Amino acid sequence: MSASFNDPECRLAPAAARPALVLGGAGFIGSALRRRLAMEGRPTTVLTRSAPADRTFAGETWIQGDFGETDLVAELMSPSHDVYHLVSNSSPGIGNWDVEIDIANTVVPTLRLIKAAVRVGVRKLIYVSSGGAVYGIPEVLPIPEDAPTNPISAYGIGKLAQEKYLLLFNRHHGLDCQILRVANPYGPGQKPGGSQGVVANLLGQALKGEPFHIWGDGSVARDFVHVDDVAHALVLASDYMGNQRVFNVGSGQARQIATIAVDIERVLGLRNQLRIHHESRGFDVPENYLDITRIGSETGWAPTTPWLAGLGGTAEWIQRIHSRNAM
Amino acid sequence: MSASFNDPECRLAPAAARPALVLGGAGFIGSALRRRLAMEGRPTTVLTRSAPADRTFAGETWIQGDFGETDLVAELMSPSHDVYHLVSNSSPGIGNWDVEIDIANTVVPTLRLIKAAVRVGVRKLIYVSSGGAVYGIPEVLPIPEDAPTNPISAYGIGKLAQEKYLLLFNRHHGLDCQILRVANPYGPGQKPGGSQGVVANLLGQALKGEPFHIWGDGSVARDFVHVDDVAHALVLASDYMGNQRVFNVGSGQARQIATIAVDIERVLGLRNQLRIHHESRGFDVPENYLDITRIGSETGWAPTTPWLAGLGGTAEWIQRIHSRNAM
Repeated sequence: MSASFNDPECRLAPAAARPALVLGGAGFIGSALRRRLAMEGRPTTVLTRSAPADRTFAGETWIQGDFGETDLVAELMSPSHDVYHLVSNSSPGIGNWDVEIDIANTVVPTLRLIKAAVRVGVRKLIYVSSGGAVYGIPEVLPIPEDAPTNPISAYGIGKLAQEKYLLLFNRHHGLDCQILRVANPYGPGQKPGGSQGVVANLLGQALKGEPFHIWGDGSVARDFVHVDDVAHALVLASDYMGNQRVFNVGSGQARQIATIAVDIERVLGLRNQLRIHHESRGFDVPENYLDITRIGSETGWAPTTPWLAGLGGTAEWIQRIHSRNAM
Repeated sequence: MSASFNDPECRLAPAAARPALVLGGAGFIGSALRRRLAMEGRPTTVLTRSAPADRTFAGETWIQGDFGETDLVAELMSPSHDVYHLVSNSSPGIGNWDVEIDIANTVVPTLRLIKAAVRVGVRKLIYVSSGGAVYGIPEVLPIPEDAPTNPISAYGIGKLAQEKYLLLFNRHHGLDCQILRVANPYGPGQKPGGSQGVVANLLGQALKGEPFHIWGDGSVARDFVHVDDVAHALVLASDYMGNQRVFNVGSGQARQIATIAVDIERVLGLRNQLRIHHESRGFDVPENYLDITRIGSETGWAPTTPWLAGLGGTAEWIQRIHSRNAM
């Protein structure tokens, strides 16, 4: 028997048609998410502080503004919206002295957003947190979602506080939410030269014929997950109807920076690039990788991009922006 | 051989002579701490927003002001100071909607205090956190210090954020600190009729011949620790030289509200007081009690006040203030 129009199931809009609001949609993860939403034919509103990106996808509406402008954000949302909060006005390397600024720029605007979402009654709020920053130095590997959270940066404390406030409003005000603790994302769209994104940085160096710049001795190990896999997890998280609120999103394995450099040489057909080692940074955790069992069993998600193919695709993208900039 | 003046040990001021600064010293725990510091002959500066308490102890200097006034607080501290941060401008029952106010009143002033303490280079900063609020609904009982922290109130999130910032400045700026997650303190000094302090409230009701007012069915269980034992833990924490930064402070056992009412009847020689049951409160965790193994093995602390004696002493204190108010 097929579902009839009187079937209450029909009153739930299918995911393909549900509108999405992406806060911070011009960024690295935001762009991958927008591509995925466009592929699924979902009407998407994008809020961004910067001017709209060159390339917008079908069905997108761009609005310039800050996610802390409660009235504006409230005007963009409806009860059928999935709201993706990808804004990060901060980074792991921010000073650990000017912490008030981090609170004012990230925690307080998120609180305003949460309240607006409760007032409007949005379908779901999906928040991108950081697996690297929230757990701190891990006691067990891989790190499960209920591991102790001991951030060693102001950025990580801010992320943790935002998570806790989301859960508070989930508990007391019925806000449906999903928190994704993403490992180290990499892939097309991550520009070399930034303070984050070691894969893009190493690729950028290799493609320019420069030596690899490596923090510490290269033994620092991280969990790298392709940005398209992250985008897929974000969409599955919005469809998810179960009881878990927090999901790790990673590859579930650790790769040392030193071995990534070797892999890049392999993908680019290079040999024995020079390595320059820099003093390791105070906010670096020696090793971490995430236990991704929960999101797998709850949503069916798994990372599907093979590592070397992901590196190759990222290299192509960086070459394209390099050659475009050179024109 | 006794220690000579040239012995480098002599350059460490003995605990008995070390000055203390107590922020929020007019409150319930603050008053018990000041009594203990006075007994040990320690010169103590007390910062309080309210007017000085009736009874001040020997060796105390009282200053009126807010702990968020960085310049003032910096003027009160020296490198030999133990600084006790007992200020709580918030309570577990505060609205979980106006969270920005909690951040502005508790988290941000604590950050300012932390920075002042780093700049001055105080000997140690001792922070009173809340075992009940920080852990949330426990997954294991008794709750150890490394249990998951899932606050279910804005108050608890604020406490947790303050803890994390202390640990951040400990890590990156060398701030020596100690965090005490105190269970439910009770004892002389806790006034009946407040939003916290179920022991004082029940005692106050019984002493006035009123019925017991009980939230829920009385099965809610808490870990009650005598305020003099808490004061002792605070002083031991300031002497502590080991590597642990976080200590639970409790009795290590749970008492149900309903059995406390029975114990109070026993101590006061009453029988079959009327019970009036009220709807349970949203921010109540059903049961919690703390694992106090760590503070015991690290500092030698243990709660020493017997429960019924503690109840009796509290009853006497409440009777004294009742009769003073009746004069």
